[in-house]
Amino acid sequence: MASLVEDRVASYIEEHAEEALAELERYCRFESVAAQGRQIEETAAYVLDLLRDAGFEAHIEPKPAPGHPVVLAERRGSSPRSILFYNHYDVQPEDPLELWTSPPFEPRRADGKIYARGVSDNKVHLISRLLAVRAVLAVEGELPCTVKWLVEGDEEIGSPRFAEFAEQHRDFLRSDAALSEGGYVGWDGTPQISLGVKGLLSVELRVRTAARDAHSSMATVVPNAAWRLVWALATIKAPDERILIPGWYDEVVPPTEAQKQLLLAQPSEAEQTLKSLELKEFLGGVRGYEYRERTTFAPTATINGLTSGYQGPGNKTVLPAVASAKLDFRLVPNQDPERQLARLREHLQRSGFDDIQVEVTGAEHPARTDPEEPFVELVRRTARVVYGREPYVSPNMAGTQPLYPLQQACQAPIASAGLGHPDARAHAPDENIRIADFVPATRHVAAIILGLAAMGD
Amino acid sequence: MASLVEDRVASYIEEHAEEALAELERYCRFESVAAQGRQIEETAAYVLDLLRDAGFEAHIEPKPAPGHPVVLAERRGSSPRSILFYNHYDVQPEDPLELWTSPPFEPRRADGKIYARGVSDNKVHLISRLLAVRAVLAVEGELPCTVKWLVEGDEEIGSPRFAEFAEQHRDFLRSDAALSEGGYVGWDGTPQISLGVKGLLSVELRVRTAARDAHSSMATVVPNAAWRLVWALATIKAPDERILIPGWYDEVVPPTEAQKQLLLAQPSEAEQTLKSLELKEFLGGVRGYEYRERTTFAPTATINGLTSGYQGPGNKTVLPAVASAKLDFRLVPNQDPERQLARLREHLQRSGFDDIQVEVTGAEHPARTDPEEPFVELVRRTARVVYGREPYVSPNMAGTQPLYPLQQACQAPIASAGLGHPDARAHAPDENIRIADFVPATRHVAAIILGLAAMGD
Repeated sequence: MASLVEDRVASYIEEHAEEALAELERYCRFESVAAQGRQIEETAAYVLDLLRDAGFEAHIEPKPAPGHPVVLAERRGSSPRSILFYNHYDVQPEDPLELWTSPPFEPRRADGKIYARGVSDNKVHLISRLLAVRAVLAVEGELPCTVKWLVEGDEEIGSPRFAEFAEQHRDFLRSDAALSEGGYVGWDGTPQISLGVKGLLSVELRVRTAARDAHSSMATVVPNAAWRLVWALATIKAPDERILIPGWYDEVVPPTEAQKQLLLAQPSEAEQTLKSLELKEFLGGVRGYEYRERTTFAPTATINGLTSGYQGPGNKTVLPAVASAKLDFRLVPNQDPERQLARLREHLQRSGFDDIQVEVTGAEHPARTDPEEPFVELVRRTARVVYGREPYVSPNMAGTQPLYPLQQACQAPIASAGLGHPDARAHAPDENIRIADFVPATRHVAAIILGLAAMGD
Repeated sequence: MASLVEDRVASYIEEHAEEALAELERYCRFESVAAQGRQIEETAAYVLDLLRDAGFEAHIEPKPAPGHPVVLAERRGSSPRSILFYNHYDVQPEDPLELWTSPPFEPRRADGKIYARGVSDNKVHLISRLLAVRAVLAVEGELPCTVKWLVEGDEEIGSPRFAEFAEQHRDFLRSDAALSEGGYVGWDGTPQISLGVKGLLSVELRVRTAARDAHSSMATVVPNAAWRLVWALATIKAPDERILIPGWYDEVVPPTEAQKQLLLAQPSEAEQTLKSLELKEFLGGVRGYEYRERTTFAPTATINGLTSGYQGPGNKTVLPAVASAKLDFRLVPNQDPERQLARLREHLQRSGFDDIQVEVTGAEHPARTDPEEPFVELVRRTARVVYGREPYVSPNMAGTQPLYPLQQACQAPIASAGLGHPDARAHAPDENIRIADFVPATRHVAAIILGLAAMGD
């Protein structure tokens, strides 16, 4: 029986994939850049319409400023079980625009891919899950479990006030399981399931040394904001990649044997990543397991951007009065963003850089789901059926999502499953999905919905 | 007799000052930004017309690429003596545009000033000298000495290939004396004469760490161009302002007693500069003589600009593949720009930063004129007459001009005299001149022309 249902669902998905991809292309035309507040309302309205058309009770819920509106939706199922889908409709800024092969908000198909800003991160995942729901409805006439949806509009700027929002909507979000964003298919075609995320502390460091820029001939006596920034940054991380802020690593828990085993079972993606980025080697020369261990378990300190003085063509003998740097710090269990922020501030003070202003632009806790949860087994088993191979399960991904407050609110195991791929270029020019990944990923979601009602019975 | 002539010259200058300032305003409307190659030809043509209208034999002489065309002009005088005027028609870029009170290329009069990009540096000086020549011609019917003019169009980008050009035009440039740019009137109304300049080495440091930007979750393994740049810069200068490049100070000659005496006779401008830049104190807490000694004799290393990654609003979790910094190093006798460049390159290599590319964007030698030259005495004496007070003479200014190749070519003493002022905001928003400075500065030039014929007789 299950097999017949699954076949019919698979057929439905294949027959309606092209229609869904056209919806995806329309979705990608919205320039929903959270950092710049572009087309946020319009994109939320488009998502709302999509969900309502699929029979969801849906509405747009404002988030306290500076948060963007959230789309909440629910469609009741025939069992008491429920699953929550997390997606976001916002995207990263498209710059540097000149490195895109085609305009980032005009989806383009080529080489079996669709290129567009946000197509992989995260728009295709909403469309794929929606097609899965439609397929189950078409075949079964009803959903075997309740499906809830939370689609937010500011994930790419660190989901401001998401924790507060999730806490307020705790009753709605409470579920038996949740699918987050971020699943993907590896270089070798194997699905990758992730059970957690790193945390993130995003800051902007700013320094002003004078009321205005001066002529650089004054450099003997007038302080230079760019130098102050450079010297301050150089105290944060050493050329050997060690973060120098006192206490930074104090709460880091070493990986357990079970977590290491999950990583050991994974293939090495190092070679392909080297090639894709045209690198000679990785930091510290790591390869193989060491590469995966670092990617999964190590905290980071990253300069995202530097700005000061004259940046145009040619030169300008100016002494800049202002300079700034954007940084993000990825955090691992049990690093707490607030505690790390206090350490950063104290470090700058103690190192003589009390002229450096620290503005927090994002803060998220790390989070993990226990690999022993039955829901994790459901996600693995269904993936095995759909993809015909054992998926790789990662204790947590290298990236960040607002999983911690979601986990606190839904009180359920959370796994990722999706159709990112290693050359998807999320956050970079020529972001893309592989069209061939769309149907299996969608079938996987449908199988999870079908399997959830029976889970643990 | 001399007094009568000087009175008539002064009257002419006063009567024609408004006419000349209108010419200046037209001149300032040309957006002759050398760094961006804007309106270079048009501005050179305007200067050519101005000089021809004053009876000069003038023409535009190309400079080898990437140099901009030079206006050369000459009007013979009645004595064998000759004086060379150096000016430049190009200006600094106008950014940051938002900090200008009014558009930089639409000259505006307010508070007894004219505001415009390039009005002080260096357009007013050409107009003032031209009015001085016209005044002498009007009163005397002829020039008592030959006046030559060299007006270049790329001083603000370090006068590329000027040395070569000056060498080629050695016969034309050979003179008995020269006036450079850069003279000014201090906070207290006293004219400041400078006898030299610092040299300059301008470079752009660039680093690329990968074929493209990556997602910042890859920061555990993928090298970050912004960090590489920060670490490399931090090896160039320490927070105590000491330049760390081995050998950097080796050829620096300490000031002589005579040079120190010149500085000791100067007023302190430190307080006004503190106020103007809204600083609590200068680097190292220097004041008074120490401030002047550092400004005059110390070499510098200045970051002019920093660029990497995402610089827009909000944050972006990107790991930048490219980063760059513009720097200038002011050089003092006897630092040689080529030798210092070799030291910088070797230092980066030896410090493990062979991934940092060094592009030279400007190189000029320091230069000084001996204070004992009779021409220096003429400039001092005439300033005393016009301004009614003893001018301050500086062994060299803190800034740079292509004085060394000019000195090599003209084989003559060179002094500055002009109407910059300490709040002129050269190279910064709201660049300006004080209108009241225009007539005395112009009378001073006329007195130098009149006095030169008799000099040393």
